[in-house]
Amino acid sequence: MARIESVDIFYLAMPEILDIGDGSQDLTLVRVQAGEHVGWGECEASPLPTIAALVTPMSHSACKPVRDSVLGQPLDNIEDIHRITRLVRENSLDLLQSDHTLSGIDIALWDTLGKSLSAPVWQLLGVSAPEPRLPYASQLFGDTPDETFAKCRASHSAGYRAVKVGWGPYGRGSVEADADQVAAARAGLGPDGILLVDAGTVWGDDVSAAVARLPSLQAADVTWLEEPFVAGALDSYRDLGRQSGSVRLAGGEGCHDPYAARTMIDHAGLGFIQVDAGRIGGITSARRVAEYAATRGVPYVNHTFTSHLALSASLQPFADSEVGSVCEYPVEPKSLATAITRDHILPGTDGMIRLSERPGLGIDVNVVAARAYLVDTEITAGGRVLYRTPDLVD
Amino acid sequence: MARIESVDIFYLAMPEILDIGDGSQDLTLVRVQAGEHVGWGECEASPLPTIAALVTPMSHSACKPVRDSVLGQPLDNIEDIHRITRLVRENSLDLLQSDHTLSGIDIALWDTLGKSLSAPVWQLLGVSAPEPRLPYASQLFGDTPDETFAKCRASHSAGYRAVKVGWGPYGRGSVEADADQVAAARAGLGPDGILLVDAGTVWGDDVSAAVARLPSLQAADVTWLEEPFVAGALDSYRDLGRQSGSVRLAGGEGCHDPYAARTMIDHAGLGFIQVDAGRIGGITSARRVAEYAATRGVPYVNHTFTSHLALSASLQPFADSEVGSVCEYPVEPKSLATAITRDHILPGTDGMIRLSERPGLGIDVNVVAARAYLVDTEITAGGRVLYRTPDLVD
Repeated sequence: MARIESVDIFYLAMPEILDIGDGSQDLTLVRVQAGEHVGWGECEASPLPTIAALVTPMSHSACKPVRDSVLGQPLDNIEDIHRITRLVRENSLDLLQSDHTLSGIDIALWDTLGKSLSAPVWQLLGVSAPEPRLPYASQLFGDTPDETFAKCRASHSAGYRAVKVGWGPYGRGSVEADADQVAAARAGLGPDGILLVDAGTVWGDDVSAAVARLPSLQAADVTWLEEPFVAGALDSYRDLGRQSGSVRLAGGEGCHDPYAARTMIDHAGLGFIQVDAGRIGGITSARRVAEYAATRGVPYVNHTFTSHLALSASLQPFADSEVGSVCEYPVEPKSLATAITRDHILPGTDGMIRLSERPGLGIDVNVVAARAYLVDTEITAGGRVLYRTPDLVD
Repeated sequence: MARIESVDIFYLAMPEILDIGDGSQDLTLVRVQAGEHVGWGECEASPLPTIAALVTPMSHSACKPVRDSVLGQPLDNIEDIHRITRLVRENSLDLLQSDHTLSGIDIALWDTLGKSLSAPVWQLLGVSAPEPRLPYASQLFGDTPDETFAKCRASHSAGYRAVKVGWGPYGRGSVEADADQVAAARAGLGPDGILLVDAGTVWGDDVSAAVARLPSLQAADVTWLEEPFVAGALDSYRDLGRQSGSVRLAGGEGCHDPYAARTMIDHAGLGFIQVDAGRIGGITSARRVAEYAATRGVPYVNHTFTSHLALSASLQPFADSEVGSVCEYPVEPKSLATAITRDHILPGTDGMIRLSERPGLGIDVNVVAARAYLVDTEITAGGRVLYRTPDLVD
């Protein structure tokens, strides 16, 4: 029997963090060791609070550090991982950040277990053969329509048949300015490509602001409008969805547990449910959402804007769903996100991406390259060192 | 014009933290200074991750430290506080713990503004005269029915007409053991008192486990069963609520933004919505829930298990709702929670409690007493000291 001997989190960052909607500028890397095997994961989360949630002293019986529910646990089979999820959620019920901390740990547990059982994670999830996915080139809007045109043209030229543009100036200026941006994106992508638009929750819960953008989105044949509102604004989603015609709504990346995603599926009138395994509690929780979404006929799509470790983790939970459906694929990550893995999931000659057949997540971490981005961190409380950046080795 | 000059968080704790459901064992105290005025607040949260969310470096445009949305902001009127809430939620959208950090800050902002305008917070909220509330003595189940009987008898003897028992062994053993506990509580309280039972989310989302306890709850004339399930398990709440007869369901303390509480009101079939101002985003967010709950005819009740600073903050948002309704009143807090304030909200000769008429929250912090519980904390990252426990002074 293997037991979990260590759980370590590393704070990595670019030398400079820009005030833009690019989530690849820092990274919360997780390493788990059980027996002879080491697995890796990533939290899509603010590194420092995520580390604090791992190591903070207990506040009471339902507010314990995440580490206490993981260290020393057996890790021999899938049920062990499910039990750890239940333990963390029960023991850290009142520690809000714990869902983000659990996410990277859970991913690392699946990677570890896959390596120990010599099986890819999708196989452990019961998938016999993962479906190829059409990657959509996920990028930020340019500052101007010309820039957006150039970005989408570049993605088209690189072979992408689907493109998403989001954040940046979209929704922050006039309705006309937004229409120009969307039209520029369509012109850059060409008439046949799948165009997706991400509003990045810019309208809060203001339905009328979103409705004003519908004509330009419809005119550009946009497949989905993503996150017009914050994740909890169910009524706003439902109201907009009733008026959005050919443009369907997508959302869910903000969900930090499977219940929240289920609630959006049930009550927000979504066309697509988007889940980040690095936020919702890891692969275990993401898989629950994917299974539920399938029963409700709502297509599941990953949210991923960082490394290919996170990409592999986010693709596993819906490896068997809907043939040919799209997946998010970041095309302008910072060097950090690219450098930390030796392996990358690249589109084939048919433009599709495929999960690795190798054990675990099939993505080796490049610890030597990652060290260059390490932010040395120390947390002390009451005279005790609770956290000091561990050695970053395999 | 006053500007917010400082926002400080202090980590306080009892010398020993027990592995029991008692949330008063540590405390996240917030101090805000704007112009000449100092205000205080409290987060019902794990202190270390809450501090980390205040000071962590930016990850990207929607994942910024909470401090960046507060420091330097004007604080002259209510709209200033509303704007700060919007700023934090937009700028820290992807920083999960930020809602808990915001909560204590928002409470401190209302306290500061009240002092600067010489008005109690309830008056700033538009309440002309706060309703007296019937405090229910909130306590943990004893380890045995005899202990529970003794606790409830003591509360009855102390003059409490309503008692809540929760956590401890309840729901963790047999149906019969739970029935004995509830019957003991009723016997201790006497036949006329209002008896409430808190299951502390022990059944996750398992409706059948909760249904098995209904006969004993009904036999003991329990007014509400609190948190049979975790906050997100809407379907489980709704299913149980349809079968629970005279026992109504209460929940909501886990909600960390107003949308989540609204979703529970709309979709969980609750008899009572319970909100902790120290978790949901402060008084601003709690007031939104109280106003919405009133339109839906669902009684709003505070969740409070710590100090009288937190108690005052949690009572303000529903100061004008439903004459004579109950409120949570912790009766076995640790010395920390009692010591940190000079003022306490005590039941009058009629057994009711009333909010202070003094400016702000009407609760002075006892910094000298609080210092004895201070946990010296330091966080460094990338060679910079991001946090070091500030001087705890008025």
